Amino acid sequence: MDSAHPSPDGPQPWTTLDRRHGDSLVLFRPRWDTLVHPRSHEPFERLVLEAPDWVNVVAVTSGGELVLVRQYRFGSATVTTEIPSGVVDPGEDHADTARRELREETGYTARRWTYLGHVDPNPAFLDNLCHQWLAEDAVLTDGQDLDPGEDIEVLTRSPEEVRDWVRDGRIDNALVLTALARVLDLRRGTS
Amino acid sequence: MDSAHPSPDGPQPWTTLDRRHGDSLVLFRPRWDTLVHPRSHEPFERLVLEAPDWVNVVAVTSGGELVLVRQYRFGSATVTTEIPSGVVDPGEDHADTARRELREETGYTARRWTYLGHVDPNPAFLDNLCHQWLAEDAVLTDGQDLDPGEDIEVLTRSPEEVRDWVRDGRIDNALVLTALARVLDLRRGTS
Repeated sequence: MDSAHPSPDGPQPWTTLDRRHGDSLVLFRPRWDTLVHPRSHEPFERLVLEAPDWVNVVAVTSGGELVLVRQYRFGSATVTTEIPSGVVDPGEDHADTARRELREETGYTARRWTYLGHVDPNPAFLDNLCHQWLAEDAVLTDGQDLDPGEDIEVLTRSPEEVRDWVRDGRIDNALVLTALARVLDLRRGTS
Repeated sequence: MDSAHPSPDGPQPWTTLDRRHGDSLVLFRPRWDTLVHPRSHEPFERLVLEAPDWVNVVAVTSGGELVLVRQYRFGSATVTTEIPSGVVDPGEDHADTARRELREETGYTARRWTYLGHVDPNPAFLDNLCHQWLAEDAVLTDGQDLDPGEDIEVLTRSPEEVRDWVRDGRIDNALVLTALARVLDLRRGTS
């Protein structure tokens, strides 16, 4: 028996009775599902935001520094420090999205690419994944290629500095942290 | 100079010209902001989902195991393995939310509570934070107290097993991973 499924009477998938879409929210397509609770058999309406997959990139320069981006974020209303990231275009392979976003946001190109895996940004209401890539031997080869609605500053820092910025909360974007946790030890009080 | 702000001509906050709310989405209140790009001075409309803060809890039993919850998630349409979590009620202190959610979802009560810090679930479009708590010496004192719309299984596992489940992707909720990264070394290939 799969040890992640320790009890045969554990949570079961719910049956979907109905699906109804709301008006597009540009980044998302809201969907209202009517689902049946598998034990009480009562119906419940739940909101799902349909979204394309995302990617983010841990890029390491040939000098061993991490490539970071700073930009004003409209949800938090703050200038954040993050790693390069973006949305997978329709029909695009997320490996290509990773290369494209690194180049467009920072001008860096990397020779060695390794897939780190995915995380689920929020399984409670989002239906998408965030794919995470490690880009090594990254070199500055181009200028930035930003959308008119972007304003992004590029910087590089040592892994130790990045770890310190995570620990003091200067880097606090959850998706960024999950990618960094695959390559840095982010525990409190360890060196 | 703050080393996270390395360049004085780096990204500046954008000026908000207008804010307009859409219909409530229960979990969220959509808001459309019209903002001015600080360099081009062009206006852009951006979506923000206003949301209450969230909490999640790394609970360690007196026997040293982590308390996990399994439930069907409507966004991913899968049964997930996570740590206890929930929404901060209006006027509630997130320290109380953490205690309440641990007790309601699992029946566990903990003697020792430590604030681990917050993460920003998604600064691009969410305006909320997720506060993270460590609960130690957790003991099973009560039954579960679930909402009619919940179906949650409780299990406990050793830190090593939890780390393995993160590495093999069985635990993939981004907010869960950011909390676990504060207490476990989640790097690939380390023991």
